[in-house]
Amino acid sequence: MTEQRERVAIIGAGLAGCLLATLLARRGIEVTVFERREDPRVTAAERGRSINLAISARGLAALDQVGLRDLTLSRALPMHGRMVHGRDGQQSFRPYSADGTHAINSISRAELNLALLDVAKRTAGVTVEFGCRLAELDMSTGAMTFETSGRPRSARAGIVLAADGAYSAARRSVTFRQGFTFCQDYLDHGYKELTVPPRDGEFALDPDALHIWPRGSSMMIALPNLDRSFTCTLFWTGEEYAAVRGQDQIREHFGRHYPDVAGLIPDLVDDYLHNPVGALATIRCWPWVHQGVGCTLALIGDAAHAIVPFYGQGANCAFEDCVEIDRCLTEEDGDWSAALGAYQRGRKANCDAIADMALDNFIEMRDLVNSRVFRAKTAARHALERRLPGRYVSRYELVSFTTIPYAQIPDRMRRQDRATALAAAGVAGAALLAATAGGRARRARR
Amino acid sequence: MTEQRERVAIIGAGLAGCLLATLLARRGIEVTVFERREDPRVTAAERGRSINLAISARGLAALDQVGLRDLTLSRALPMHGRMVHGRDGQQSFRPYSADGTHAINSISRAELNLALLDVAKRTAGVTVEFGCRLAELDMSTGAMTFETSGRPRSARAGIVLAADGAYSAARRSVTFRQGFTFCQDYLDHGYKELTVPPRDGEFALDPDALHIWPRGSSMMIALPNLDRSFTCTLFWTGEEYAAVRGQDQIREHFGRHYPDVAGLIPDLVDDYLHNPVGALATIRCWPWVHQGVGCTLALIGDAAHAIVPFYGQGANCAFEDCVEIDRCLTEEDGDWSAALGAYQRGRKANCDAIADMALDNFIEMRDLVNSRVFRAKTAARHALERRLPGRYVSRYELVSFTTIPYAQIPDRMRRQDRATALAAAGVAGAALLAATAGGRARRARR
Repeated sequence: MTEQRERVAIIGAGLAGCLLATLLARRGIEVTVFERREDPRVTAAERGRSINLAISARGLAALDQVGLRDLTLSRALPMHGRMVHGRDGQQSFRPYSADGTHAINSISRAELNLALLDVAKRTAGVTVEFGCRLAELDMSTGAMTFETSGRPRSARAGIVLAADGAYSAARRSVTFRQGFTFCQDYLDHGYKELTVPPRDGEFALDPDALHIWPRGSSMMIALPNLDRSFTCTLFWTGEEYAAVRGQDQIREHFGRHYPDVAGLIPDLVDDYLHNPVGALATIRCWPWVHQGVGCTLALIGDAAHAIVPFYGQGANCAFEDCVEIDRCLTEEDGDWSAALGAYQRGRKANCDAIADMALDNFIEMRDLVNSRVFRAKTAARHALERRLPGRYVSRYELVSFTTIPYAQIPDRMRRQDRATALAAAGVAGAALLAATAGGRARRARR
Repeated sequence: MTEQRERVAIIGAGLAGCLLATLLARRGIEVTVFERREDPRVTAAERGRSINLAISARGLAALDQVGLRDLTLSRALPMHGRMVHGRDGQQSFRPYSADGTHAINSISRAELNLALLDVAKRTAGVTVEFGCRLAELDMSTGAMTFETSGRPRSARAGIVLAADGAYSAARRSVTFRQGFTFCQDYLDHGYKELTVPPRDGEFALDPDALHIWPRGSSMMIALPNLDRSFTCTLFWTGEEYAAVRGQDQIREHFGRHYPDVAGLIPDLVDDYLHNPVGALATIRCWPWVHQGVGCTLALIGDAAHAIVPFYGQGANCAFEDCVEIDRCLTEEDGDWSAALGAYQRGRKANCDAIADMALDNFIEMRDLVNSRVFRAKTAARHALERRLPGRYVSRYELVSFTTIPYAQIPDRMRRQDRATALAAAGVAGAALLAATAGGRARRARR
């Protein structure tokens, strides 16, 4: 076993690990990133785990800091709204914003990860070590042991930043510490991917939308890819997967419940039978920063607060963590202890808020999006937005198209929703008055 | 390493492990209990970890099944109510039930554990192995490895029942399985024990009460022991412990905030400085039953659902688990798989309910118990109980003095509380009418 000493180690060369390594190295900090997978430039992705990302305002703001904003947008497909597919095959487009200009950006996780990895590797001070699976982190010494394809390796660091995802290996070193509040909460639903390939060289569905097949207790979505295919993702319960098994059952089920898309998935039976069912968990824990004798461990991104994917905010939120750590280091003059303390205090409420909103949005997407009440509410909201531009903004827009702290959104929505309820009830005039008065009062306070 | 094969292994010879071993062995099942501690008959308890139990109806019903009801009562001290101690040293007694006849029973955990251990060891088919700390349970084979004071031991079992407490080692073998929802939620408050010894050979406080010093954000309680001492337990936040440190500070603080008891604790400074601060967690997880290739693991008692101690129900609830497993085995004709499935489905909602009630009761004990609103409500409830015997029963009584499933209690309370709110508001007549009408309607439906 060879041992090396590091000042700062990052566990995980995923999206957050690569961005954070770049930001830290720019400050003159030597960073070593340990990644359990082999170098993605020489190995293929896992089957059925493509997982498109929807990068929006928060993610773009963070990527801008390392010069990746334009590259990201050039490799992404903008989706300006939801395309809702009924059981009868009817489609209906619902823009994400009243004026139809805002879009979220579908991009391949693997491709964005490669771009971030390239930037990190080109930054002086960053070393990336692949094929190193963290087996143990000894909090009393900062000693790390890694399993590799050959002999185990060891290293040591004073600051260990865990960016190793929802199932964080680094977090296990503190999971059973007294006082560490930790919750992993699995949905009954698991996800499975299917592929809609191009048809005659063109997109088989509208590429400008996030497609949703809301089916009450479950749903399917589809996001466009640059190669003109779509990745469909089923969100079904274990019972639903168990009930649909044989070839005939699969064809019959999709033909009945997803009639307009079943014919667009030539490998339906093969994809369904052979792609894995992924689990969906919300992870909440506290504290995120742990002091050992010889090392400080901080959890970031999914390792600290994994969320379900229904708001498309997991990566966006993790990127915000990285920028916040960088900002806190500036504010605290490079004092790691103070900076990490400020980071966790500042981010916790925001990450709790987006976790709750992501769970809510699952119910909305699979259920309400198709209902009359939801449509009436959305129409009323958009009417308000058009009449009161900048003063009424929907929750979806606040989350996706602004960088307002997540934790402020629920409260703002409660205030707005009181107005919307009136509007939806037909008392549009009253809502307008109330909102205008609120605006005036706000201006008066300034 | 010697290896032995078992049909059923129980991890933990605590209260639940011993009771369950006895119940199973009576069915003709060979059971081996593995306990990490050394034999308690030859070793002493840990300092500051005496932890009195308050055994009530549920626990007594379970203990009755193994003939320990009378022995338990003979070694316990009944507490018929709460004695609330104000900051001014004033005491006020609040009976637990309207007629004053019901009591919860203060007993030493160590002593009750010894009694249960004796019964288990006297039951044919039970083997107890001390000094065996579970290091690993391999769910694919049922192989267990134990650390001992000497060489590691191994054993193998088809059924492993984890009764090893809130920090269950057995549960770790499934904690990171996909789909295992797991939450450990720590209170900001930790507990520390102090001792009020007998004064002139007599109890220094009323032995017929559970004493409470509610102090808003924190509190102290005291329970009587057979040797005429009291064990006091502080429930303070980390900040409060940190703020009270030196000898003078300790004396000054207790003299001011606990004036009537400070003088009764001769070793106050020593107890305070040297007794540990224990953590208080609520553990929720699901499922409780895990199927491996070679073994089935079931979590019971605190390993499945540790709760905070403010309702005195942790042990009572764990005893109910044991009785339920025994009942399910009868019902399912000895089919372990069916019985454990029925056990977890039947118990989950009940254990979730008492977990929530225990957290609520902390707020009530440290805060409301001293407030006017609480006293008015309690007085109104007791008035209702006296006027409508059997029809209005307080939550405390339903939890402590009945064996009504915990999960049914919140709903029953909501119905009753509507009546109480009216009574507390002075509309006693209306409440009486409503409750009587409810009783009549209920009788009519039968």
